[in-house]
Amino acid sequence: MIVISDGHETGDTSIADLLREIDPRAEGRTAYALIERLYPICRSITGNGVRRSLRLLREMIPLELREVMSDTPVFDWTVPDEWNIRDAYIMSEAGERVVDFRKSNLHVLNYSVPVNRIMSLAELRPHLFTIPEAPEWIPYRTSYYQKNWGFCLAQQQLDKLEEGEYHVYIDSTLHPGHLTYGEFRIQGQTDDEVLISCHSCHPSLCNDNLSGMVMAARLAGLLQGTSLRYSYRFVWVPGTIGSITWLALNEGILPRVKHGLVLSCLGDPGKFTYKRSRRGDAEIDRAIEHMLTHCGHEFNILDFAPYGYDERQYCSPGINLPVGCFMRTPNGCYPQYHTSADDLSLVTPSALGDSLIQLLRVIQVLEENRCYINLNPECEPQLGRRGLYQQIGGTKDAATKEMAMLWTLSMSDGKHDLLDIALRAHLPFEQISQATAALLKAELLEPLIKS
Amino acid sequence: MIVISDGHETGDTSIADLLREIDPRAEGRTAYALIERLYPICRSITGNGVRRSLRLLREMIPLELREVMSDTPVFDWTVPDEWNIRDAYIMSEAGERVVDFRKSNLHVLNYSVPVNRIMSLAELRPHLFTIPEAPEWIPYRTSYYQKNWGFCLAQQQLDKLEEGEYHVYIDSTLHPGHLTYGEFRIQGQTDDEVLISCHSCHPSLCNDNLSGMVMAARLAGLLQGTSLRYSYRFVWVPGTIGSITWLALNEGILPRVKHGLVLSCLGDPGKFTYKRSRRGDAEIDRAIEHMLTHCGHEFNILDFAPYGYDERQYCSPGINLPVGCFMRTPNGCYPQYHTSADDLSLVTPSALGDSLIQLLRVIQVLEENRCYINLNPECEPQLGRRGLYQQIGGTKDAATKEMAMLWTLSMSDGKHDLLDIALRAHLPFEQISQATAALLKAELLEPLIKS
Amino acid sequence: MIVISDGHETGDTSIADLLREIDPRAEGRTAYALIERLYPICRSITGNGVRRSLRLLREMIPLELREVMSDTPVFDWTVPDEWNIRDAYIMSEAGERVVDFRKSNLHVLNYSVPVNRIMSLAELRPHLFTIPEAPEWIPYRTSYYQKNWGFCLAQQQLDKLEEGEYHVYIDSTLHPGHLTYGEFRIQGQTDDEVLISCHSCHPSLCNDNLSGMVMAARLAGLLQGTSLRYSYRFVWVPGTIGSITWLALNEGILPRVKHGLVLSCLGDPGKFTYKRSRRGDAEIDRAIEHMLTHCGHEFNILDFAPYGYDERQYCSPGINLPVGCFMRTPNGCYPQYHTSADDLSLVTPSALGDSLIQLLRVIQVLEENRCYINLNPECEPQLGRRGLYQQIGGTKDAATKEMAMLWTLSMSDGKHDLLDIALRAHLPFEQISQATAALLKAELLEPLIKS
Repeated sequence: MIVISDGHETGDTSIADLLREIDPRAEGRTAYALIERLYPICRSITGNGVRRSLRLLREMIPLELREVMSDTPVFDWTVPDEWNIRDAYIMSEAGERVVDFRKSNLHVLNYSVPVNRIMSLAELRPHLFTIPEAPEWIPYRTSYYQKNWGFCLAQQQLDKLEEGEYHVYIDSTLHPGHLTYGEFRIQGQTDDEVLISCHSCHPSLCNDNLSGMVMAARLAGLLQGTSLRYSYRFVWVPGTIGSITWLALNEGILPRVKHGLVLSCLGDPGKFTYKRSRRGDAEIDRAIEHMLTHCGHEFNILDFAPYGYDERQYCSPGINLPVGCFMRTPNGCYPQYHTSADDLSLVTPSALGDSLIQLLRVIQVLEENRCYINLNPECEPQLGRRGLYQQIGGTKDAATKEMAMLWTLSMSDGKHDLLDIALRAHLPFEQISQATAALLKAELLEPLIKS
Repeated sequence: MIVISDGHETGDTSIADLLREIDPRAEGRTAYALIERLYPICRSITGNGVRRSLRLLREMIPLELREVMSDTPVFDWTVPDEWNIRDAYIMSEAGERVVDFRKSNLHVLNYSVPVNRIMSLAELRPHLFTIPEAPEWIPYRTSYYQKNWGFCLAQQQLDKLEEGEYHVYIDSTLHPGHLTYGEFRIQGQTDDEVLISCHSCHPSLCNDNLSGMVMAARLAGLLQGTSLRYSYRFVWVPGTIGSITWLALNEGILPRVKHGLVLSCLGDPGKFTYKRSRRGDAEIDRAIEHMLTHCGHEFNILDFAPYGYDERQYCSPGINLPVGCFMRTPNGCYPQYHTSADDLSLVTPSALGDSLIQLLRVIQVLEENRCYINLNPECEPQLGRRGLYQQIGGTKDAATKEMAMLWTLSMSDGKHDLLDIALRAHLPFEQISQATAALLKAELLEPLIKS
Repeated sequence: MIVISDGHETGDTSIADLLREIDPRAEGRTAYALIERLYPICRSITGNGVRRSLRLLREMIPLELREVMSDTPVFDWTVPDEWNIRDAYIMSEAGERVVDFRKSNLHVLNYSVPVNRIMSLAELRPHLFTIPEAPEWIPYRTSYYQKNWGFCLAQQQLDKLEEGEYHVYIDSTLHPGHLTYGEFRIQGQTDDEVLISCHSCHPSLCNDNLSGMVMAARLAGLLQGTSLRYSYRFVWVPGTIGSITWLALNEGILPRVKHGLVLSCLGDPGKFTYKRSRRGDAEIDRAIEHMLTHCGHEFNILDFAPYGYDERQYCSPGINLPVGCFMRTPNGCYPQYHTSADDLSLVTPSALGDSLIQLLRVIQVLEENRCYINLNPECEPQLGRRGLYQQIGGTKDAATKEMAMLWTLSMSDGKHDLLDIALRAHLPFEQISQATAALLKAELLEPLIKS
């Protein structure tokens, strides 16, 4: 049973304890239930939809809402005006709302300026967006930085529209206001930080948005209750402009960010995908690749590319943080991506629960990974008289434990951390970590103090 | 329409312009026509055959003929006596020329000393060379550095010779004279040079000799009319002794040679082959490998080996220039190699035309490849407000252009040149080059000035 | 005909001469005959069985027996008490020796303390060891560092034992005494050493013990008669405690050990296996991998792992010698491993003879491998006028010799040794070595003197 404190202090539980205690199914169900509540809200890169969403997440962890004024310069960009919308529709001459924002907030081109006109279908067409290849699905489209308005609809909806006059109505506002993002920090034993980032700007899309937002919140909640070496900073930011804003306002913090992850698309049942940081061989890259190798499922590793989610900004050449992106099926690689079909049927409680477990296993590696020094480097120490060596025969498990100890002793020369050892030994990190604990107890190892 | 100036000055046309303007078929036909005229001439490492051949090339470009006196020491070697030949035959008792130099200059062992004797077939046999496995073809054999004489003939010719006396006659001279080579230089914006070398010492062999000679001449002609960063030096040298002589006489120039190519076997329809320089990772190596990756055909990359053409000398350990060898089917890898079957039917206008295009594409990479610095390295610059980013949706071509810009920005950190970026992005060099032009115009990049 | 001197001086014969002269079949038969005589002896990590075995090896080479007192501290370990055994059995009520040490010394748990008791089968069972999956074979088990006693027997023997009382008798002693190991050193031209080590502590096991012991002895005998650059040190040590003892007593020698090999399992007909040193790219690693590549048989290369034979100690992080392990089928990878089936039928004279040849070929590489400097690095030297180049045509063998010379000239720039050249040229080391000899004679190379 996990007791989560209200404050930001870390507890006594280790990540290993946590992994033994939590129930992935229950976690998955809880995450899914929160996604159900977030789903109907019309989010964008600014506005009240984001605020409502972040406040809902506060049921899981006491994150703080930060407000940044429109027109604030952030590197090469400027915080845009705030967008809010109340209603929108296309009404036929018969008075029927043939396209209706109340049915799906995807129907409105996100960031549409207000409009209230009578137009012929021909005049209207340039403002209508569909996916001819998937005639039942509504596309998700935006126009943040070029003033425009429009409607997104299913191709089969468009096909039914008859020639004639339509009342086109968007009741939106685009005025100076704020950009809103969420932030939550857990103080660990050191000020070195792990950054977890997700985007929070997509309207009714489940996998590409809500799965990451909820996984980050639940991960933050679980870590609050544990004993941590690193401090953890979670940010829920609108894509691109949000991470740029956060980076511009927090340049002083960046040297302390030792590892980072962007979370997205973690609710579909596809295999795990890890996209490496721009550095390509950062500790987070090695940690996740090792974890996935031993997760028992198929997985994909992608090299960094300057496209995708906010890792684009965290890994820009002048920032270059060791931040990768953890996903199941990546952006653009599932047919429902950026359509109304990225809905509550695409994400599953069990996929969410399993994603959370794998994230915790990565955190475990980061937390436990260190360099140790073999204090008896000349020949093997006599493990037998310390009770660390099987006598006459032994089980397969005992043999693995011995191999883990022998590898740890062999490679603890100050040049290899535990993750190096696990990778070289082809053993799960936990085995090396447990062997290290036994060898520390036997005073055969000591942590390397870097001068 | 390309206007080629008479002087050596470079023009305003860029290589990219040139590639858009030239007609590969017409180029191939012109090259083939010149090969037809060069084919009958009896070339060797010295003598009038080389002079006549180089003068024919002067119809394409005003190359200079250089003469180096016999007995000149060149590193470990000495320029040999000059060899010339007027006639040669083996005549039967019936007065028939059963082997006749006038039918093919391959019939004479190249560099044969004069002979005029009556001999039995048995006495003659040690001086006769055939290819038993290809009984219709005449082999190509030489004896430059050991005085000897001999005849090469088809096995089926030999099989028909009856026992009896033969009149053996070679009307050649081997006297102090000169070694002749051709040289042509185009001054570019800098004195840094690109060296293009081909051998010019083989008699009636088309692919292994004439294709390289003509490609070099036409490439020189085309580059004359263009705007060039590098200076280009073309040499037509007899194999081995010619490149050694050139190197010995031009040691002062070598530090300026930044890239180089040996050209040979460029007229057969086989796939392209690139043999790396001894360095293995020189810019020319990376440039050609990249170009071939995107040329749309199959190709082969070979590691350097100290055998082959004049790259043996250019890449000897004390010279070690970044010179690779560009071919279609390599020496020794096609059955007609060094036989009378390497004739006008083995090379084709279309293969020649395509080889020229690929050479120009390599030159384009060398000319345009540089390091640039991203002037907005912290987060991505806002491409949209500069008109560099597609709005709502966009074509596949627009997406590739954006990716090219994003990769160029991401990797322009002073450590990667455009070729590195193209290789990493898996995009053709032209795409990266065009993206660079757009980003330079938008003042988002500047060239790296190396201190 | 090889004459082996009695002293430790090296002779005039080269390893290449030796390889031409020796008869692998005769060598194999001699080695096998010695294994037959060593087989019945009951060896352990200490005691008279080891002494008798090492004295038998003295028929091949005059190795010295070293005695180290019990209780001597050696790094983290202590030399154990000496164990000797005269007799042991389990006798039925009918007076039959149902398990009898005189039939196989494997029947006794090695290092069993004395026992002389009447016990029921039920009381006895915890002291009985079998292999249920191989019911006809007796397992080999030890209990060196935990006082215990026991019997090993075939599962089918155990199945026949009836309930009842048994007389259990082990006539052993475990008292302060000595650990015995063998050592033999050949002084070469330099004091730099090659270390050859094998374990000598297993009782009646042929492949895993005797094959290595006899190969080491014969190799020592052959090297005695040859001209050597390196000094060679051979040690026959009890596994683990023996190498630890040797290392602890010889720390001053270790900086002179430039290469080393552990020998084991060299008598079975399986393919060769080389397990790399912990360094992974030591000269011995490159030498053996190159030799195996050209040995004409399949082979396996294994990365270092901190398990196996005494390379565990030689490669411990504080010792880290360049020592690999040369085997045919490795420990644990053949079903007879550590059972009574590792007997005289598992090893063959021809496998032993071939193993010896391959070892000599590795020694040849180590002895001949050096860096040379090309004295004519600018362009190729004219091999023809030095008689090193084929004239008109030539055999395939002549072509290989030329390629070997060209590669040696090309890569002799002070950065590559002959082994590097052989690896890069994909030619057997002997070819490069012969080319080097010819080039040295022609004064085109000189040895690199490292400053």
